[in-house]
Amino acid sequence: MSIRIGILGYGNLGKGVESAVGQNPDMELKAVFTRRNPEGVKVRTEGVKVLHADELAHMQDEIDVLILCGGSATDLPVQTPKYAQMYNVVDSFDTHAKIPEHFAAVDEAAEKAGKISIISCGWDPGMFSLNRLYADAVLPEGSAYTFWGKGVSQGHSDAVRRIAGVKDARQYTIPVPEAVEEVRSGSNPTLTTRQKHTRECFVVAEDGADTARIENEIKTMPNYFADYDTTVHFITEEEMKRDHSGLPHGGCVIRTGKTGMNREHKHVIEYHLTLDSNPEFTGSVITAYARAAYRMNQEGMKGCKTVLDIAPAYLSAKSGEELRAHLL
Amino acid sequence: MSIRIGILGYGNLGKGVESAVGQNPDMELKAVFTRRNPEGVKVRTEGVKVLHADELAHMQDEIDVLILCGGSATDLPVQTPKYAQMYNVVDSFDTHAKIPEHFAAVDEAAEKAGKISIISCGWDPGMFSLNRLYADAVLPEGSAYTFWGKGVSQGHSDAVRRIAGVKDARQYTIPVPEAVEEVRSGSNPTLTTRQKHTRECFVVAEDGADTARIENEIKTMPNYFADYDTTVHFITEEEMKRDHSGLPHGGCVIRTGKTGMNREHKHVIEYHLTLDSNPEFTGSVITAYARAAYRMNQEGMKGCKTVLDIAPAYLSAKSGEELRAHLL
Repeated sequence: MSIRIGILGYGNLGKGVESAVGQNPDMELKAVFTRRNPEGVKVRTEGVKVLHADELAHMQDEIDVLILCGGSATDLPVQTPKYAQMYNVVDSFDTHAKIPEHFAAVDEAAEKAGKISIISCGWDPGMFSLNRLYADAVLPEGSAYTFWGKGVSQGHSDAVRRIAGVKDARQYTIPVPEAVEEVRSGSNPTLTTRQKHTRECFVVAEDGADTARIENEIKTMPNYFADYDTTVHFITEEEMKRDHSGLPHGGCVIRTGKTGMNREHKHVIEYHLTLDSNPEFTGSVITAYARAAYRMNQEGMKGCKTVLDIAPAYLSAKSGEELRAHLL
Repeated sequence: MSIRIGILGYGNLGKGVESAVGQNPDMELKAVFTRRNPEGVKVRTEGVKVLHADELAHMQDEIDVLILCGGSATDLPVQTPKYAQMYNVVDSFDTHAKIPEHFAAVDEAAEKAGKISIISCGWDPGMFSLNRLYADAVLPEGSAYTFWGKGVSQGHSDAVRRIAGVKDARQYTIPVPEAVEEVRSGSNPTLTTRQKHTRECFVVAEDGADTARIENEIKTMPNYFADYDTTVHFITEEEMKRDHSGLPHGGCVIRTGKTGMNREHKHVIEYHLTLDSNPEFTGSVITAYARAAYRMNQEGMKGCKTVLDIAPAYLSAKSGEELRAHLL
């Protein structure tokens, strides 16, 4: 029998989960839930119902795992604890500073319900967290570095779009190649924010807007840009559509450390992602963890988990015997 | 209270584990066990006893985890099932084809004893296996490639040393850079053994030995060299000592795959290791898994596990709260 998946929220991430579920023969997309009018939402997988989110109140017998595809700012802090009371759930909550309180709220709900909730799933937090942990445990005397990009930051793109006179904008986060090379050399550098990443903005300005003012507002924006070397390019709507309609991303986690009685040997552990589509890759990670949520709950486990708490074999459709024989 | 570690076998790997235990403040090296005369073995950590392996029959109250540092060919198939009956154990069994039968023998012993055994721990099998599994689960439609090196293969070095007229030898396994780049491009190539790796041998010949014959015997040796492009360099004993006394190694696991309703997006996942000392890094991985063995057994778990069965958080000395707050 297939693992029956529900998706709540049909934006970029929901669509990424939809296509990932279609790539896993042991899963079946049962329904997409939306807070909008379901008649206005058209899903791409044949035969899949679109239902209003209110229907989730009574769908427990038809959905094994509900994947929450809302945003971390306002959706997930409410949705995950709410639906953790009714379903095995997976979310991609990525506000790092608020993970402890989100975990506590979700854990309480999932424990009561006897269900599994997996939070903060994706690539960062997610695959990058796993690599930070493994490398930290293996090389306790060392330093870890995370670089993001080259890729589109949706938060930074939105910030630029909010500036008066900006019609559309896309922001790329770019690791500084010299910084990455310095880290890989094992020299254990101390790097400032400015030394690690640069930011590049492509902006479509309104007709007659003051581009010098826009450029200055971007470059001096606190938190988002002021601490970085930022480049701003003004382009046409056609160029935006032609050259910047994708959502590529990626990055790397690098840990260097020393071993030996006199710490005489150096080691470098690197994990790199190069992604054509951030939401589809994130959706693929979440989908693998949906399998884990289902299987762990089948074994009687409950409560809130993160990727750090989940044995890797739970992610795979293959049996323990197969994994040991062919993949170990 | 510290986790009390015992080491059986004090070769390169045993020494690597010794230095790793010294880097983990929650662990204590209690004793090194040897099948040789203990008086002939001098360990580098102050205050650590050297005892004959026979003493393991009655040391259960003093050792929490016994780390087995023997070889996969003849030592571990006997030692791991034997000591799994008495201790939580970790080994680095790396004969891939025989892992299923080794697992079965160890699992039976560990289940009976109510202890945890972790087999096939290190970097391949080990960290590379983890990365193969995670990437396989996240990108089900894709291809995975493992490259080894540049590094010293001890098995191949030994094979060259067995040739008549060879006094000493060191063999480096080297990935073909063009093959790695082709894989990283996502072109999903089919690669022969010869296309993936080259082999480079440094040989000290006996006085008056026929170097042309030695070179030919190396290059035509079945399984070890015949399927590879091999280079042979004859060097002096001094050069061997000066330039080839280390045991560096490393390699990478790369998986490329596609996502999207029309498989229109490409993704590349890469894990790279660059290691100055193969045995010290392997020892560091094993030591982190010794912590996992101890903690899992404290929680009442038993039986044989591999890295694929172990939740990452068990490897870390940090608490779940710390991990979620600072590393996730």
